Amino acid sequence: MTLASLRLRKNADRRLKSGHLWIYSNEVDIAVTPLKEMAVGQQVVVEASNGRAIATAYVNPNTLICGRIISQDPKQGLDKSLMVHRIKIALGMRERVFPTPHYRLVYGESDLLPGLVVDRFGDVLSVQLNTAGMQALEEDVLDALEKVLKPTAIVLRNDGGMRKLEGLEEEVRVARGELPDEVFLEENGVKFHVPILTGQKTGWFYDHRMNRARMQQYCKGKKVLDLFSYVGGWGVQAAAAGASSVLCVDASAVALDEVEKNAALNNVTEKVTTMQGDAFEALKQLIAEGEKFDVIVLDPPAFIKRRKDIANGERAYERINQLAMRLLDRDGILISASCSMHLAYDRLIDIVRGSARHIDRQAQILEQGHQGPDHPVQPAIPETDYLKSLIVRVFRD
Amino acid sequence: MTLASLRLRKNADRRLKSGHLWIYSNEVDIAVTPLKEMAVGQQVVVEASNGRAIATAYVNPNTLICGRIISQDPKQGLDKSLMVHRIKIALGMRERVFPTPHYRLVYGESDLLPGLVVDRFGDVLSVQLNTAGMQALEEDVLDALEKVLKPTAIVLRNDGGMRKLEGLEEEVRVARGELPDEVFLEENGVKFHVPILTGQKTGWFYDHRMNRARMQQYCKGKKVLDLFSYVGGWGVQAAAAGASSVLCVDASAVALDEVEKNAALNNVTEKVTTMQGDAFEALKQLIAEGEKFDVIVLDPPAFIKRRKDIANGERAYERINQLAMRLLDRDGILISASCSMHLAYDRLIDIVRGSARHIDRQAQILEQGHQGPDHPVQPAIPETDYLKSLIVRVFRD
Repeated sequence: MTLASLRLRKNADRRLKSGHLWIYSNEVDIAVTPLKEMAVGQQVVVEASNGRAIATAYVNPNTLICGRIISQDPKQGLDKSLMVHRIKIALGMRERVFPTPHYRLVYGESDLLPGLVVDRFGDVLSVQLNTAGMQALEEDVLDALEKVLKPTAIVLRNDGGMRKLEGLEEEVRVARGELPDEVFLEENGVKFHVPILTGQKTGWFYDHRMNRARMQQYCKGKKVLDLFSYVGGWGVQAAAAGASSVLCVDASAVALDEVEKNAALNNVTEKVTTMQGDAFEALKQLIAEGEKFDVIVLDPPAFIKRRKDIANGERAYERINQLAMRLLDRDGILISASCSMHLAYDRLIDIVRGSARHIDRQAQILEQGHQGPDHPVQPAIPETDYLKSLIVRVFRD
Repeated sequence: MTLASLRLRKNADRRLKSGHLWIYSNEVDIAVTPLKEMAVGQQVVVEASNGRAIATAYVNPNTLICGRIISQDPKQGLDKSLMVHRIKIALGMRERVFPTPHYRLVYGESDLLPGLVVDRFGDVLSVQLNTAGMQALEEDVLDALEKVLKPTAIVLRNDGGMRKLEGLEEEVRVARGELPDEVFLEENGVKFHVPILTGQKTGWFYDHRMNRARMQQYCKGKKVLDLFSYVGGWGVQAAAAGASSVLCVDASAVALDEVEKNAALNNVTEKVTTMQGDAFEALKQLIAEGEKFDVIVLDPPAFIKRRKDIANGERAYERINQLAMRLLDRDGILISASCSMHLAYDRLIDIVRGSARHIDRQAQILEQGHQGPDHPVQPAIPETDYLKSLIVRVFRD
């Protein structure tokens, strides 16, 4: 099969040479290769401005990122065979690093499979097809995963925010096999139930694994508050690590039911309590009640979704970090996280610094955490590096 | 005792308000309080430009950083009593985090004790007095450490590079107690002998503890190369973690003797070999011999010591990362570290990216490491945040 061409403007190949995988719509020489004549999800040969073929890509003429590179080899299209090859490479690394089969198996661009996310919960896979190019390959993706992993079931969690931008419908279904009644995972030695069809994103957030492992160090015998707890990833691990008590706060009653289920799974039911409500309001209420905690985990959803939200988003991080710090007992630990790609790491450090100064406390950054190795950073694509997690000691001199 | 005043120029108090602890000589209003009339190491009350007392500091009129803040309380001088208080605060955090008494106990500015470094090896302490202000308090420092920790011995390792800038003599001696014949430490479950009087810096580098712990994950059954090995902090831990073989390269024969001693201490003698020589030359020789390794640890000394060395230093990091990558077997792991404060983290990532592109390999940043919690970052002082350690997977697509 011969692929159509996508001609780049002058110098637009430079970022690709550095290893980046994205082509922006204003980088295409539409006089030579009109984008609007291309089909959504179509595969193409990418040409430099001089006509030399330099790579293959799939395209979506309707999005700002109109192309994503498949291969530096201009003869290599993306099909089931290349998919199997790259899934095996991705699996090789995860099997080397993790003791149990619970991890993000494919992290999009970083695993050279743009637009594809696969989370593994033992024999069950949760898949997101986030781009039109990857959606067009749905059957190949499912076939390749079955070939490499022989899973019991594959769930399609095609309800991510990116699909709308790509002009794709939302859809959640069991695409292959039969889903067991309950799906579980193990993280840092702690067991969790996964709401695979109804939970957020793929059902679980593996990205904070190492940060939760580090948290455990600070929890023994301590009173812990877990804000935006979701199903208790942090809170239940804190309890399992020996916290004296853990309060999980979340806006969703369904998530808090899962917290209780997960606490029971790990025999820490008597240590874990829940509180339903907005985190900002809950913080104000706890402050008013004179509550204090030794360790507070603050892992909010992304307050900055787009570049234009940066100023407002940073103020929201400031407000919530200040509120949380006021609840810390003397010599307390704040674990302050952010999954906003647009929040720079040094800005988060500065927000924590300012929050401590605001209440006349000293702050020490004890640890700077990042996403785990199952969310590898593609060094040419800063956008693949989004997760931050500070462990901060807050004390009076 | 009434302290003399140090008057700041307009707005020079702003950085101090943010929590920074340094005063630069061009920030002093020398018309009001002539710096040159002050004694080296003298304590002063710091005044804003309007004359309001805002803090205390100690000074050195001969250095660019002419003052370091002691306290925000203008009545609080630095004496044995405040020293005891702050050492206890520092100790409290270390005892909470570390399972054995082997850590950096005091990390200068970050522990609110500017110019003081104390490394703890069980009952033996290794102390650096890096500024004239701290040197002036030598007896108070030693008394305070004895009071809080009752050590067997305190060694003064007053041979750091900073002392020359401060106009201080070099001196290494046992200042208190009696030094045992041998000093040991444990890190990540592995035992090491510490060359406390003759080794680099305080005798050991605790800062990489967590990065070495993460390295262990990647070493089982693998062939490991440890460049700039010093006494084997990385290499011997790799062997103890199950590496099939480890080659330690260092320019110092004395350090390599220590590597062998440490290998014996952990019963991994048969796995660890050493090679004396310049790391760049050793890499070229190993490449010429067609050697390959699964895991390479590249933890060079600071190639960038001053801001003006940035361009040359970055080129040196580039050269050595490229050489190391060429020695990696297919699907290898490069652990690329830098202790140069002036090398930005994203520059190191870009150096690794470029090195992989240079030999047509794919790179994934699996982990981004930092200094451990016994080297806390003072969030207002970016200079306290210097250590970087990337775990990079290098593979062919």
